[in-house]
Amino acid sequence: MNYIGFDVGGTNLKAALVNGAGVILAEEKMKIARIEDQSALAHTLVEMCRGLCAAAKIPLEQVASVGVGVPGAIDIHTGTILYSCNLPLRSVPLRKLFHRELSMPLYLENDANCAALAEYFAGAGQGSKRFITVTLGTGIGGGIVHNGKIFHGANGMAGEVGHMTIISGGTPCPCGRRGCWEQYASATALKRMTAEAIECRPDSVLARVVAENDGHVSGQSAFIAARLGDETAITVRDQYITYLAEGIMNIINIFQPDTLAIGGGVSNEEDASLLLPLRRRIEQESMPVNRDKRTRLVRAELGAKAGVIGAALLGKKKRI
Amino acid sequence: MNYIGFDVGGTNLKAALVNGAGVILAEEKMKIARIEDQSALAHTLVEMCRGLCAAAKIPLEQVASVGVGVPGAIDIHTGTILYSCNLPLRSVPLRKLFHRELSMPLYLENDANCAALAEYFAGAGQGSKRFITVTLGTGIGGGIVHNGKIFHGANGMAGEVGHMTIISGGTPCPCGRRGCWEQYASATALKRMTAEAIECRPDSVLARVVAENDGHVSGQSAFIAARLGDETAITVRDQYITYLAEGIMNIINIFQPDTLAIGGGVSNEEDASLLLPLRRRIEQESMPVNRDKRTRLVRAELGAKAGVIGAALLGKKKRI
Repeated sequence: MNYIGFDVGGTNLKAALVNGAGVILAEEKMKIARIEDQSALAHTLVEMCRGLCAAAKIPLEQVASVGVGVPGAIDIHTGTILYSCNLPLRSVPLRKLFHRELSMPLYLENDANCAALAEYFAGAGQGSKRFITVTLGTGIGGGIVHNGKIFHGANGMAGEVGHMTIISGGTPCPCGRRGCWEQYASATALKRMTAEAIECRPDSVLARVVAENDGHVSGQSAFIAARLGDETAITVRDQYITYLAEGIMNIINIFQPDTLAIGGGVSNEEDASLLLPLRRRIEQESMPVNRDKRTRLVRAELGAKAGVIGAALLGKKKRI
Repeated sequence: MNYIGFDVGGTNLKAALVNGAGVILAEEKMKIARIEDQSALAHTLVEMCRGLCAAAKIPLEQVASVGVGVPGAIDIHTGTILYSCNLPLRSVPLRKLFHRELSMPLYLENDANCAALAEYFAGAGQGSKRFITVTLGTGIGGGIVHNGKIFHGANGMAGEVGHMTIISGGTPCPCGRRGCWEQYASATALKRMTAEAIECRPDSVLARVVAENDGHVSGQSAFIAARLGDETAITVRDQYITYLAEGIMNIINIFQPDTLAIGGGVSNEEDASLLLPLRRRIEQESMPVNRDKRTRLVRAELGAKAGVIGAALLGKKKRI
């Protein structure tokens, strides 16, 4: 059977038609800003479903279900978008609107949970029974797949690992708390730390690396300059990894997943710079359990397409 | 049916015979130090089983199973104590030793998980589907009961909420990490903060309260003096509640339990001093979800007997 997934992002609306193994058979994307209101959103989804089927030469009847990943709070039972951080979506009865035009099962899910489900079915989490993904981006997204099901908690909002405080009273977070992990370990945080270091040390190799990148501070800048031996960059990188390890260890001590996958651009750094030092920290700080039962730290495998693949695969298994 | 539970503590070995509702029918305790070695431990458990049955006038055949709660790491599958923090127990094949003398199902479990299970079956967690207990004592114990089962994670060590960092690089913890929650929000931490405040302000009401308690700093001292309006005590109390709220909010943002119960001596403080300010923080800092779906913060109900009751009830339901 085939499945269609949508990933509603701050900039783009991505869509894909995948088979049961999560392999993309057709894909499409458009600027989200072109969609005027919630009725238009539902209508666009229906149109894109038809378009994807036409492109893949698969009749609509051979699509089992449609899934939509949304950055924000959703009610999975009613298929309603409750609110979204970066989009003007408030109380959108998406399933109802969609069903006016197309009677096909439609599932809604938080986008980080979709990414976790995609990795579970088709990526780094295959075979895992206690699986967690941590995606380092603008914020930190978390998704938990427990015994093959998305772990929703009592209200559908579980897995917000980015909003655990790792520094009591620390940097204010838009969520209303202070010292949230994503203020220290997201890609955004790494860029901020890099920019601050350059301001203090304008003569550093780090500053030169950024200057050569048209003055653009990226999540890679500190890693690149650190590999060139720059002390300023090494300090930034090591501090970043310390913060990252802090939150990962918290998750491990609470959940003890068998596998924890890190995704997002930062996760593409080479093993020696990122995964190996993180694994050393886990080794040092884990509760004493048998070595073979320690959490396996891996890189997520599906990259930026995890969201849309996972949204598609929402229909693959009963989720609650 | 009836069940026997043991709670292996740093000082006492507690035992109880309970009915299926968790009501204690007979109980017993002894100094753990009197037990010489692991064979003697197993033998003592068998003897106490017989003693409890005699006291309650219930034949051994009417006891379904025996459960043992241990402060440390255990292998629930083999029934082995892997290690314990405060006791000289390393790799103790307790089930095997016990079965040499008595052929009755024996379950082993971490003591904080036992406490959570007791509250789930017979206390503050009845009816909860996503239940967490946080016990404020020497450290902070955590237990998770998910859909009626103890949440073990991949290796039996899940729920160590006391060992999540809330202050990166903070106070060293015996677990090997720094800034663990239990260094700031356990009863021990509260006493330390109280003692430090008295040292700075020997003329405070707080100092007088402690002096009148034979110089003994307790987990109540700051709460008592704060109710008398003492600024020093109010600062200590409010800082303590801030730390406590920090960790509780972390747990909520990750797990979204429907009910979170706080236990341990500190939890006996009156609502106005403890539960109400904590609930206000939860209200302010929760992810935006419907009010009726927010985590309910309550006081644990079974007190110091939760451990032994929960150990007994381990046999009540399949646990894995």
